[in-house]
Amino acid sequence: MRATRRHPVVRLGADGSRRRRSDTLAGEEPLEVRVGGMSLSVTMRTPGDDVDLALGFLLSEGVLRSPDQVATVGYGPGVEADGTRSYNVVEVTLAAGVPAPDLSLERRVYTSSSCGICGTSSIEAVRKTTRYDVADDDLRVPLAEVLSLPDRLRERQGVFDRTGGVHAAALFRVEDDGPAELLCVREDVGRHNAVDKVLGWALRTDLLPARRCVLQLSGRASFELVQKAQMAGVPVLAAVSAPSALAVDLAAEAGMTLMGFSRGDSVNVYTGGDRVVG
Amino acid sequence: MRATRRHPVVRLGADGSRRRRSDTLAGEEPLEVRVGGMSLSVTMRTPGDDVDLALGFLLSEGVLRSPDQVATVGYGPGVEADGTRSYNVVEVTLAAGVPAPDLSLERRVYTSSSCGICGTSSIEAVRKTTRYDVADDDLRVPLAEVLSLPDRLRERQGVFDRTGGVHAAALFRVEDDGPAELLCVREDVGRHNAVDKVLGWALRTDLLPARRCVLQLSGRASFELVQKAQMAGVPVLAAVSAPSALAVDLAAEAGMTLMGFSRGDSVNVYTGGDRVVG
Repeated sequence: MRATRRHPVVRLGADGSRRRRSDTLAGEEPLEVRVGGMSLSVTMRTPGDDVDLALGFLLSEGVLRSPDQVATVGYGPGVEADGTRSYNVVEVTLAAGVPAPDLSLERRVYTSSSCGICGTSSIEAVRKTTRYDVADDDLRVPLAEVLSLPDRLRERQGVFDRTGGVHAAALFRVEDDGPAELLCVREDVGRHNAVDKVLGWALRTDLLPARRCVLQLSGRASFELVQKAQMAGVPVLAAVSAPSALAVDLAAEAGMTLMGFSRGDSVNVYTGGDRVVG
Repeated sequence: MRATRRHPVVRLGADGSRRRRSDTLAGEEPLEVRVGGMSLSVTMRTPGDDVDLALGFLLSEGVLRSPDQVATVGYGPGVEADGTRSYNVVEVTLAAGVPAPDLSLERRVYTSSSCGICGTSSIEAVRKTTRYDVADDDLRVPLAEVLSLPDRLRERQGVFDRTGGVHAAALFRVEDDGPAELLCVREDVGRHNAVDKVLGWALRTDLLPARRCVLQLSGRASFELVQKAQMAGVPVLAAVSAPSALAVDLAAEAGMTLMGFSRGDSVNVYTGGDRVVG
């Protein structure tokens, strides 16, 4: 139950060198999310911030939208095969009156990929379940601010520094004067999990909708990550690498600003360029 | 239904430059896999090699192990919201006598993440369903050969060259003399899909178990990718980036050789170093 673990490794060089050393590996363990006693998902994640991961997942799935909808949340009972206490199950009890998630098989198939059968219908499905309108967020972000965010995220990627093996996501709030405020950074072997941990934190601390915020990703921007940002009301999504075609489609539909290849000296703006100024 | 798509983009430079250009984006669309008329999964993937993706997924899930277990496989009927023919559903009919996949909710929750609730139990669950023993594959791979594979994979990453936004996987067969033979390269927005496409191709062409083969990955090695390699009987897995802790555990349990940070001039050997010689 740790974010990293040491492991012996042999480094073989093309020059015939052979060095034994200890390498730091990113932790990866399954986390089961249970709601009202029913298993909703199992995801492979880096241990840590598991409650936020569960809450962010439930936000993405349309089950939660505010912290008062949660009655209790915490690690469930249970032990590992070796008899030690398990920290791989998070149990959520919904507040009275909050509808339980639809556990039907058909629903599960579609929510597991967070989409429908074709791009068009999936975008429509998302729009129906989204509670926040990001299109009306009149945030303006200075370009210099946008270009600074990858480095500010990179400085906080402690697990990546040790392992080279995890993704990161960070939520920044843009201020009228002065640099954007870094609200939350999370790392995980799964890109989706890093985003869920950040957005679950925002849900838990009652910061949603995340107006005037930029969600900065260490890697690529897929359809599902745009969808998660939309469910949290994030108006601006910036990625260090490429967005997919469907990610651009969904961002355009949602009125979200989507940027990619943000590398310090330049950035590609795919949708919603009006929000980037200066 | 294409692997890439052009999209207008504005590139903003720190120097105030503003260039309009056309960017190539990686395609990302949902693919539904149906077996015997029942929906088994929906995954976001880059269109192309969809039959192999479906077969590779069913191999990973323990439903298939040889091509004669498939009676029919192809795109199902159906149209998109705009009335055009849909190519986002692959339908598989199993041969007579092949057990249908378990569609129960509990089973689905666990197969969706390809694991159980803790690392130990998940490794045991995999071992039970694996038909091939990779531990007894006495393959020996020259180090120079291992170090050459990332570049040989990189040369064939055509979609990555255009988009910067996809992962790749390749299957190489090690020869007694001469360089390893490149059998199959596939690219996809999802790492798991690139591997499923390669291993599904190997299943379809009746090459399993993939003895004497190296599966080379363009990125990181997670637990699930080691598991997929094991289900296909691949004895050696090499990744350009880091493995996770659980990936190393599973490879060690399976007797698989796992290498990471394979960068041309050196490589880290985590497990099964006996297979790397010279």
